[in-house]
Amino acid sequence: DRDQSAREQELRESELADRAVAGFAACPDPRLRRLLESLTGHLHAFVREVRLTEREWRGAVEFLAEAGHRTDDKRQEFVLLSDVLGVSMQTVAVNNEAYRDATEATVLGPFFVADSPEVPLGGDLAGGAPGTPCWVEGTVTDTDGKPVGGALIEVWQADEDGQYDVQYPDGRVAGRGRLRADRDGGYRFWALKPTRYPVPDDGPVGRLLAAAGRSAMRPAHLHFMVTAPGHRTLVTHIFVEDDPQLLFGDAVFGVRDGLVKRFADQRPGTPAPDGREPGSLQPGGRAWSRVRFDIVLAPGE
Amino acid sequence: DRDQSAREQELRESELADRAVAGFAACPDPRLRRLLESLTGHLHAFVREVRLTEREWRGAVEFLAEAGHRTDDKRQEFVLLSDVLGVSMQTVAVNNEAYRDATEATVLGPFFVADSPEVPLGGDLAGGAPGTPCWVEGTVTDTDGKPVGGALIEVWQADEDGQYDVQYPDGRVAGRGRLRADRDGGYRFWALKPTRYPVPDDGPVGRLLAAAGRSAMRPAHLHFMVTAPGHRTLVTHIFVEDDPQLLFGDAVFGVRDGLVKRFADQRPGTPAPDGREPGSLQPGGRAWSRVRFDIVLAPGE
Ligand SMILES: [Cu+2]
Ligand SMILES: [Fe+3]
Ligand SMILES: [Fe+3]
Repeated sequence: DRDQSAREQELRESELADRAVAGFAACPDPRLRRLLESLTGHLHAFVREVRLTEREWRGAVEFLAEAGHRTDDKRQEFVLLSDVLGVSMQTVAVNNEAYRDATEATVLGPFFVADSPEVPLGGDLAGGAPGTPCWVEGTVTDTDGKPVGGALIEVWQADEDGQYDVQYPDGRVAGRGRLRADRDGGYRFWALKPTRYPVPDDGPVGRLLAAAGRSAMRPAHLHFMVTAPGHRTLVTHIFVEDDPQLLFGDAVFGVRDGLVKRFADQRPGTPAPDGREPGSLQPGGRAWSRVRFDIVLAPGE
Repeated sequence: DRDQSAREQELRESELADRAVAGFAACPDPRLRRLLESLTGHLHAFVREVRLTEREWRGAVEFLAEAGHRTDDKRQEFVLLSDVLGVSMQTVAVNNEAYRDATEATVLGPFFVADSPEVPLGGDLAGGAPGTPCWVEGTVTDTDGKPVGGALIEVWQADEDGQYDVQYPDGRVAGRGRLRADRDGGYRFWALKPTRYPVPDDGPVGRLLAAAGRSAMRPAHLHFMVTAPGHRTLVTHIFVEDDPQLLFGDAVFGVRDGLVKRFADQRPGTPAPDGREPGSLQPGGRAWSRVRFDIVLAPGE
C-alpha cells in the first residue's frame, strides 16, 4: 500500500513535468520552444529534488516581486541576481568558447558606457579620479601571435572608493576611455590601480547574500572591451594578484586564473616607462604601480 | 587543437557551475543552502544545455523586470508565471503526496478568500451571481471509508462570465461560501455550473503564452478547500467532463483525471433533489445541473 502510493506519487510528478514541457510543443518558434521546454524541465526537477514547500514557493514569489520593484533605469536587481548565482558568467562562458590561447572573457557588469572619451596611446584615462596611478601596457595579437594593429581598446574602472563615474552625483566622466593599439598591436596608458568594491547589497539580492553568509565584494579589477574586425569581441577584466579578496571569492564568479595579473608597485620617485614621475610635485612624490596585459583575440565568426 | 579547445570549454563550464554551487557552502541555514545549491545547479544546466545567447539572457532579465513592474496587491505576475510553467502545480504535487485513494489536490489559485459566508447544508452560495444553477452533493470520508462528520467545506467559483466576486467592481460577495458536512460526512449545496475563463493575459506572461501558441484558458472548475482535524487539508477543484477546453489543456496544468466529474444537465421543470424547481417562476422554468463529488481525506501529519 505504501509502495503503491510512492509509485503513484512518482508517476504523478513525472507525468506533470512531462505535461508542462509538452505544453510548448506547439510553439511556432523552434528556438523559443527549446528554451521554454528546457527551462520548464529544469524548474520541475528543482521543485521535485528539494521538495519545495508551499511556504518556500511563496517566499520565492515574494522575493521576485521585491526584486522587480527594486528595478528601475539605474538598478537592475535581476541582473544582480543572475550575477550572484553565476548565471551571467555561465552565459558569458557559453558565448565565448575556448579557442586555443585566446584571452578569456568575463562579465560586462553594469558600468560600461558606449562612446567613452578618446585617449591617446600613453595618455591618462583616470580623469582626475582618486587612486594610485597605474601604468598599463601590453599587446593585442591573434591566436597565431600576429599583432592586431589598430584594435579598439575600451577601458573602465572604479576609483579608489569603489565608485564608477556613473555613480558620481555630478555626472562627470572619469576612469574610462578608449584607445587604439599601434601598428604592432602595442598599447599603453595610465589608469588607477583597481580596488575592490561591493555589488549593490541594499536590496533583496544583498539580503540573500547575507543570509547565505556570502561576501558582496568583487575583487579589484580593470575592465576591458577589445574590438577588431575579423576577431571575436573580447569583454574581460584583469584582477590584482595579491588582492586578498581573491581568497574570499568574487560575488559574481568573474575571476579566471589567466586574468589575474601581477601589479608591480613602485616607490615614489621611481621614473615611469614614459619618463614621468607621478606626483613629482608632491613632497616625496607618489607611489604608482604597473601591469602588463597581453591580449589574444579569437577569430570572429 | 580543436579537441583540446572543446575539452577546455567543457572544463570551464563545469568548473564554473561547481564554483557557483560551492558559493553557498558556508550558508548557515542548511535548508536555504540546499535550496540555493539545487537552484543554482539547475540554472547552470539550463544555460549550458540551450547555449543561452547574451541577447536571450537580456530578454529574460527584461521579462522578469516587466513582470515585477506588473505586480501589485491585485496582480502577482510571478505567481502566474509559476502557474503557466506548471511549477505551482508541481509544488502542490510534492506537498500533497499520493495516499491510497485520497482525493488529489490541485492549485489554490488567486481567488480564495478566508472567512467566506456561512451557508447552511442545502443552501445556495451563488449569491445572485449569473449562471446555471447547479446542485452539488457528496460525502467526506477518510481513506478507510469512515465519514468525516463536521468537515469544513469552503467553495468558490467564477460566475458564467468567468468573473470571481473579488473581480466585481462593487465589492459584493458571491459565488463563495463555507459549510459543514453533517454527522455522516454528507454535504449538499446549490452553486453555479462552472464555466471556463482565461488567466490574466494582458501582461508579459500573457505575451509568453501567445508567443508559445498556448491557450490562456482554464477549463471550467469549482474550487474546494476541505479541512478537518486529524486530516490533511485538501485544496482542489472539480472539472466538467464534457468541457471542450479539457482537450485544449489547462493554462496552469491543474487538471487531474480523478477530478473530472460528470455534470448531469437537467431540463427546465425537473424537480431538484431538495424539491425545488429552479426558476419555476420564469416562463418555462430554468435548466439546471447536478454533480456528485465524494471527497476522501488523507490522514494529517
Ligand atoms: Cu536541471
Ligand atoms: Fe566592475
Ligand atoms: Fe479558478
